[in-house]
Amino acid sequence: MRSDVLNPPNPRAYTFVGGDEGSMRVLSQRTVSGASIAPVSRVDMLASLLTELPSAAAWMLSGVATNDRYTTRTEKGELTSRQAPIGRPEATRAALILLRKRPEWWALAQDERRTILEEDSHHIAIGIRYLPAVARRLLHCRDLATDAPFDFLGFLDFAPDDEAAFEDMLVQLRATREWSFMDREIDIRLTKNDG
Amino acid sequence: MRSDVLNPPNPRAYTFVGGDEGSMRVLSQRTVSGASIAPVSRVDMLASLLTELPSAAAWMLSGVATNDRYTTRTEKGELTSRQAPIGRPEATRAALILLRKRPEWWALAQDERRTILEEDSHHIAIGIRYLPAVARRLLHCRDLATDAPFDFLGFLDFAPDDEAAFEDMLVQLRATREWSFMDREIDIRLTKNDG
Repeated sequence: MRSDVLNPPNPRAYTFVGGDEGSMRVLSQRTVSGASIAPVSRVDMLASLLTELPSAAAWMLSGVATNDRYTTRTEKGELTSRQAPIGRPEATRAALILLRKRPEWWALAQDERRTILEEDSHHIAIGIRYLPAVARRLLHCRDLATDAPFDFLGFLDFAPDDEAAFEDMLVQLRATREWSFMDREIDIRLTKNDG
Repeated sequence: MRSDVLNPPNPRAYTFVGGDEGSMRVLSQRTVSGASIAPVSRVDMLASLLTELPSAAAWMLSGVATNDRYTTRTEKGELTSRQAPIGRPEATRAALILLRKRPEWWALAQDERRTILEEDSHHIAIGIRYLPAVARRLLHCRDLATDAPFDFLGFLDFAPDDEAAFEDMLVQLRATREWSFMDREIDIRLTKNDG
């Protein structure tokens, strides 16, 4: 293979690796809808693309941080002014939420998806209410050159005291019209402390 | 590498291969803005993902057909009712347009990009005026797991008699505010007839 025509990894790509190793310990792994994946005891989040599964791993999932798809300038301004980055020292708890939406969602026009997501479901507004306590990194998988098993990988971290607020946020989101388009969801809770 | 955790190619992925072989003959290759790519005499369009450059090829470019990013339900209805598929027997001429937009574009909010693309630049409305004569397949590269040299690969085909109309469309699009965000554009014209 000629290296001069091969593309380097996308600098916005991340890979989650599940197995017996990794920086985060799994507290729970729950299949909310659709098919499950292999249960694991640890998860790693790598700011890179892996092309080979590490020998001790059960699965790896890649995604890319992309441009905003739905947020308006006003919403983006509010998000930017309030949100915290992933990886604060006090954010020792995390959730990895694996999501796939039904083909019907992807066949909608942009204005229809925006209406369901925000005007009907208040997805952006609900998320803003939990800032800066719940930080998040949303990765997209659907437009990778390989056929990914999920459309989105959501990684969120927070202090242990904010886990109840995080649960509250999830309950609200899962009750929305937008969530009726989910056909697969897996909720993996993590701690960054080994203790 | 364990095959059970590798993803198959995305069924919406296509690869263009440039070199001395391929089903389409290059009539012209023009760098409109930004860096050029190696000149080639033939181009192939494959409905698949290649991971290795064919031995006779100079370059390969992959992209994925994705969901609509800007079109409203009304616009989508009009597009769907008027557009023709790629590959009509009379559409013996084609253009492969390679495009990349500046980072400033990608940093805009969704409503700002929509306003520039359609309310200011009439991108969708201009395209509709040339339906069904000019058929198109728009592929996205920016969210691939590898760092692609272009954001979009546009493939358009038309009858030889409609090439003037196609030129007219391009002139209009290149004069728009949206096009001021392009930092790289290469325009490759092709014939599907060898003669």
